[in-house]
Amino acid sequence: MKVLVLGAGQLARMMALASKPLNIDVKAYDVGSNRVVDPLSLSVDYGDLDQGIADADFITAEFEHISHDVLALCEQSGKLFPSSQAIKTGGDRRLEKTLLEQTHVTNAKHKVVANKADFDSAIASLSLPLIMKSALAGYDGKGQWRLKDKSEAEAIWQDIQLFIEGDTSGQPQAIVVEQMVPFDREVSMVGVRSKTGETLAYPLTENHHSKGVLSVSLALNEHQHLQAQATEAFDKIANALDYVGVLAIEFFQVGDSLLVNEIAPRVHNSGHWTQQGADTSQFENHIRAVCQLPLGSTELVRPSAMVNILGTDTVPNNIFEIPSVTMHWYGKGKRPGRKMGHINICGKDKAELTMRLSQLAKILPKDDFPDVSEYVKSL
Amino acid sequence: MKVLVLGAGQLARMMALASKPLNIDVKAYDVGSNRVVDPLSLSVDYGDLDQGIADADFITAEFEHISHDVLALCEQSGKLFPSSQAIKTGGDRRLEKTLLEQTHVTNAKHKVVANKADFDSAIASLSLPLIMKSALAGYDGKGQWRLKDKSEAEAIWQDIQLFIEGDTSGQPQAIVVEQMVPFDREVSMVGVRSKTGETLAYPLTENHHSKGVLSVSLALNEHQHLQAQATEAFDKIANALDYVGVLAIEFFQVGDSLLVNEIAPRVHNSGHWTQQGADTSQFENHIRAVCQLPLGSTELVRPSAMVNILGTDTVPNNIFEIPSVTMHWYGKGKRPGRKMGHINICGKDKAELTMRLSQLAKILPKDDFPDVSEYVKSL
Repeated sequence: MKVLVLGAGQLARMMALASKPLNIDVKAYDVGSNRVVDPLSLSVDYGDLDQGIADADFITAEFEHISHDVLALCEQSGKLFPSSQAIKTGGDRRLEKTLLEQTHVTNAKHKVVANKADFDSAIASLSLPLIMKSALAGYDGKGQWRLKDKSEAEAIWQDIQLFIEGDTSGQPQAIVVEQMVPFDREVSMVGVRSKTGETLAYPLTENHHSKGVLSVSLALNEHQHLQAQATEAFDKIANALDYVGVLAIEFFQVGDSLLVNEIAPRVHNSGHWTQQGADTSQFENHIRAVCQLPLGSTELVRPSAMVNILGTDTVPNNIFEIPSVTMHWYGKGKRPGRKMGHINICGKDKAELTMRLSQLAKILPKDDFPDVSEYVKSL
Repeated sequence: MKVLVLGAGQLARMMALASKPLNIDVKAYDVGSNRVVDPLSLSVDYGDLDQGIADADFITAEFEHISHDVLALCEQSGKLFPSSQAIKTGGDRRLEKTLLEQTHVTNAKHKVVANKADFDSAIASLSLPLIMKSALAGYDGKGQWRLKDKSEAEAIWQDIQLFIEGDTSGQPQAIVVEQMVPFDREVSMVGVRSKTGETLAYPLTENHHSKGVLSVSLALNEHQHLQAQATEAFDKIANALDYVGVLAIEFFQVGDSLLVNEIAPRVHNSGHWTQQGADTSQFENHIRAVCQLPLGSTELVRPSAMVNILGTDTVPNNIFEIPSVTMHWYGKGKRPGRKMGHINICGKDKAELTMRLSQLAKILPKDDFPDVSEYVKSL
């Protein structure tokens, strides 16, 4: 079986690694070069998108910011899972918010802003502080503004106006203005849905962000009432999209309630721990769903955590001495802040996991992992 | 880091899959074609052996029947781990038996037979029944004869004589004649030794063979007294060979004692369960040892089993519905009896594992997996 992944980054690479043992051959479409490549040895070229579509049995995506032309071409082939509509919904906060409203899934109060009148009206009708996010582009903290005091509004609008005018996506850009949620913590749910409508969810993951980028994820199998809430939201969203594959939902936890922050129509950084910590990894489960194989169990094997490696291509070798540490380098060239790899770590219970995480945090250099130690201490 | 593996079969492939996340690039030397290939996409050619040796940081082997010229060339480079002597010992039962005698590791009574006089003397001095094994070639039941009654001796000698004369290895062939051990079961230990002499052993694995070929392996973490015996044998053998990498030892269990059957200087079929069932897989640990990274914990994560797939390239898709089933296809063309892949399966305890194994055995077709059901029932 052959699967073409739209996008040739680490998510395509990890799908390819999970697919080899299934005798499923994954190729990746590099949107920058319009070439189809082997995601494990990027040097090999298998032709352009048309060739890639023709050669594939199934097509999927590793990210949501894909041009609509490419999505349309793939959808026409009848091989694309999830659908182009599902991928677009994850790539456009306007569609995402509409979906959440339609499915009655709790999320922050918000307004869509396309011009100055919308902007003024949003500020008047929502309570400050506000967070403003680009509808189309931007994640990991990019394309976002925060408004804490009305006196800052004019300056922010100037910036937003330039951003909207400078957009090169070819679609009308807009901003979604949201009431900032005074959350207790950020959690996410990764789940999978089959073509026949079966859904399975992984245990809720606690996420620690640093400067807007995921730093540490923790999967413990606690908080069954939150797990139930998140699963309900997952099912509503995945069913509404007639979704096929792995879908991730980021939530804000406020007291005992979850509010959706955003959805990602793909395997997700906060699900990387599943490679060692779950019966079936998110990468294998995505490929199983896309290839219409039975879904794999999403049960936690043991408490697990993931630490992102950002902007560096080395870590001290003695982290390998900690039992259960598994390295995942992405084989990418170093750039400041770039996601270069991640470390998975597990324990038989929460105590063993946090003990091992403390050992790990002590070894990791503070310059490259500025706040891991502090977060681990808080557990 | 770049590693060249001598041999381009499934073991090299699984080393390559385990190495990608470590940013270690594995290439494989196909002894048949004298070409260095990518073990994950066999089509790509990186030159001949000299080129492969020059490009590699470290060299290792996936099998022990490698010509001495090739081993000598690799050893000269200073990059070969384990040593050529260790690899040769695993490929020659005469050296293997000498090693076991020198290290005082219990094994079956035996004689080396190079001619008719040796043969007659072995039959006279050992108790029947006897098993006769080619010193140089043959595993998985090939190159073996069984003598139950002295009346069969002459006919067997004719056959052995032809075998010895027909040997094309370029080295003097011989036969090792052993007293057959009335064993209770077959177990094996896979362990790893670092260049600095650290050793770590995986839990003892129970092996069920069918027609001389491994069919099912079971890793349970039981029998601590046997684990201690096997670990002692492992340490003696690995230290005597100044071994670097993963080494496997097959034992016969007789009552509460273990007798070494044979050693394999490489990752081993009976250690495939470690991919899902241990903190670090045997493939990653071999590569870690060869590349002089710290060894990874060999602890059992949960009771695990492996079922070999022989001679068929399809299994029913509904095996994927059993929680914890992980498929490992080798991407090879189908041939009768050929090792085509394996299935790993785990459970939180022995009861859950055997329950899942029973489910699996019910689904697997009897024609392709003739005795799995029966074995699983016996657990």
